[in-house]
Amino acid sequence: MHPRFQYDLDDCAILGAIETVGDGWTLKILREAVYGLRRFDDFARALGCGRGVLSDRLKKLTAAGLMERQAYAEPGQRPRAEYHLTDMGWDAVPALLALGQWRERWAPQAGGPAIRVTEPNSGRPARVVLTADPKAAALSMEDVRISLGPGARRIG
Amino acid sequence: MHPRFQYDLDDCAILGAIETVGDGWTLKILREAVYGLRRFDDFARALGCGRGVLSDRLKKLTAAGLMERQAYAEPGQRPRAEYHLTDMGWDAVPALLALGQWRERWAPQAGGPAIRVTEPNSGRPARVVLTADPKAAALSMEDVRISLGPGARRIG
Repeated sequence: MHPRFQYDLDDCAILGAIETVGDGWTLKILREAVYGLRRFDDFARALGCGRGVLSDRLKKLTAAGLMERQAYAEPGQRPRAEYHLTDMGWDAVPALLALGQWRERWAPQAGGPAIRVTEPNSGRPARVVLTADPKAAALSMEDVRISLGPGARRIG
Repeated sequence: MHPRFQYDLDDCAILGAIETVGDGWTLKILREAVYGLRRFDDFARALGCGRGVLSDRLKKLTAAGLMERQAYAEPGQRPRAEYHLTDMGWDAVPALLALGQWRERWAPQAGGPAIRVTEPNSGRPARVVLTADPKAAALSMEDVRISLGPGARRIG
């Protein structure tokens, strides 16, 4: 028997994270939220998923504390809901950036990266790194700027 | 119209990564591989998923280059397959650790973390951080050690 089975590792933060956000649609919603989307119809359009699926995932993200619902109304229309990333939601984004960086290393896009993440004061690229250096200054998403890279193709 | 829709962002590394590993079972397989599992039956036991689902996800991980199949045979038994993380697969693990660290910050386990990641020379904890510091030394998974934390409950 593999020694792993001598332990109950169900109370593992990685597993908890997988159960909270480890789903394709959920991760795609978070990605679109990083790109600035807030509204149900915009998420539906960007993801191309069914409205039931989207509604389910937004509910789960809200219940888990990554997003919060805010009402808005266009003039003359009924109030609708926007979904904003909370501090907890923004704090999950570096893990998403880490996935993107991994993909860039192993399957770089021909047209270059679609987005760039930079620290605006220094203008330096912000990277997600595994480090044991206690002096490595950890940035939050508030400290960095996401801008379009050469791989973002303007439509029309 | 939200300005996001002026761009085709489909050639985005984050999206590519989500399409490769952004699935609950896939992420759970990677987590168990980090814990040392290699064999189909061990993955099946640890994940508690159907064999068809597991076989599908292992095939996808192998096709995408994160795992490779290696034959092994117990004495007197027919050859079976082990699934080993490749360099590409190990390189995805810091993103998984980033997810776990996020979860620890926002929903810490009562019993403490199930695993610890340390840099063996310094004994310091290895963290995944977003940084613009060009001097921040990035470690690979070969440079760190994963050990059980207080949240790993010994069975029996």
